[in-house]
Amino acid sequence: MVNEKLKPVLEKLREDNIAATKKAVKSSVKKDHMIIQAADSLYEIDKAANMLAKRLREWYEYYNPEFSKSIEGHEKFAELILTKTKRELLAEIRLSEADSMGADIPKVDLDAILALAARVNSLYNLRKQLEQYIEDEMKKLSPNMTAVAGGLVGAKLLSHAGSLKRLAMLPACTIQILGAEKALFRHMKFKARAPKHGVILQHPLLQKAQNKGRAARAIADKISIAVKVDYFKGKFIGDRLRNELEKKLA
Amino acid sequence: MVNEKLKPVLEKLREDNIAATKKAVKSSVKKDHMIIQAADSLYEIDKAANMLAKRLREWYEYYNPEFSKSIEGHEKFAELILTKTKRELLAEIRLSEADSMGADIPKVDLDAILALAARVNSLYNLRKQLEQYIEDEMKKLSPNMTAVAGGLVGAKLLSHAGSLKRLAMLPACTIQILGAEKALFRHMKFKARAPKHGVILQHPLLQKAQNKGRAARAIADKISIAVKVDYFKGKFIGDRLRNELEKKLA
Repeated sequence: MVNEKLKPVLEKLREDNIAATKKAVKSSVKKDHMIIQAADSLYEIDKAANMLAKRLREWYEYYNPEFSKSIEGHEKFAELILTKTKRELLAEIRLSEADSMGADIPKVDLDAILALAARVNSLYNLRKQLEQYIEDEMKKLSPNMTAVAGGLVGAKLLSHAGSLKRLAMLPACTIQILGAEKALFRHMKFKARAPKHGVILQHPLLQKAQNKGRAARAIADKISIAVKVDYFKGKFIGDRLRNELEKKLA
Repeated sequence: MVNEKLKPVLEKLREDNIAATKKAVKSSVKKDHMIIQAADSLYEIDKAANMLAKRLREWYEYYNPEFSKSIEGHEKFAELILTKTKRELLAEIRLSEADSMGADIPKVDLDAILALAARVNSLYNLRKQLEQYIEDEMKKLSPNMTAVAGGLVGAKLLSHAGSLKRLAMLPACTIQILGAEKALFRHMKFKARAPKHGVILQHPLLQKAQNKGRAARAIADKISIAVKVDYFKGKFIGDRLRNELEKKLA
């Protein structure tokens, strides 16, 4: 039994504790979290935009099949059909309206199609906007890593590690295969070949490298140094690291 | 060997044939196709909107977790955070800003979150717009079926059958289980129980019916009559059919 006199004191202590915890939760939100959310959302935006773009093409092709077949990129496609008329679009592929197999549809149908096109276009714009946001914020949060790896690859590494702190604590060989967890466990359980690279596969220097394994090791090495400097608020040495990397992989 | 004199004649014939085929393709596009595309796109729009809304909530909850937890619908949620400030939203659930666990984030982060919210909101608006479009066009294309089944259910039946003509040729018992093909084949191959309803499950009268099987049969019956009248350009008897149906299921 609690002493009756103690009750209000304990009650006060409890309230103060809750208030302190709320404050701690509040101040625990860092720029890392924002960048990770933005980086993770890119994947979903792509998925949504591509799904809707496929539907848009299928629908639009009743109206103007020749133009849709002539253009590959969904992004450009959605933008063009929003800004130009059927006649203008057909003129671009040197076809007259009379030669087109596309039907003449009433305005109300075309409006519905273009309403869908507007959403597809707007999703692709959001993607660009968030990419820019990630690039900008990564430069502030982690300038060295961004110089070495680029903002997007850096943000994805951050997302896999969970925070800048945890990424800074990881050895280079772990950074090298972050994002290839599935392949790693396949390797450990079924003696498949070990993965050579995870997220960093998207690094431009790795894309054009001949010996992928060697390049992946070198890039992960420099990223590991860069992120440690960033986390412990060191000087900016990103340029030097990037130069050394480019020389090594030249 | 083709006679040399015949060559230009054959060439001309070939060109005329291609032109005639193109014209036939062009004139084969009907309102059915437009409505089917719109109805099919609803499913994808839902999927995209829900996927992005989940991400939006996860991201937004760093900023204002209490409000996000207090509201269930994604659509309303996206709309409200776009139009009101954090203070106003917290006031709605009787919380002061000081009591919130949400962090104060810089404007650039909030802008990124709201850019995503704008897309989510816009996808839900598209859904409403296309639903209205389907309802309006179905009333013109198939007034009797729309009176009996509603525009959306009618459009989905149309999508499963492929066209108004094919839907008009189907017997009522097929209409009853259109959209339950998986269950039907499970029934035929593995002696599972036969499906009682497909797309028409979404019919309001079926939703509140006690005996689902009986209601499904009755609804499919009336739809079958209505769509035949529509296809063969009969008079409008949708009201009568609907009344009979409601009396039967009362």
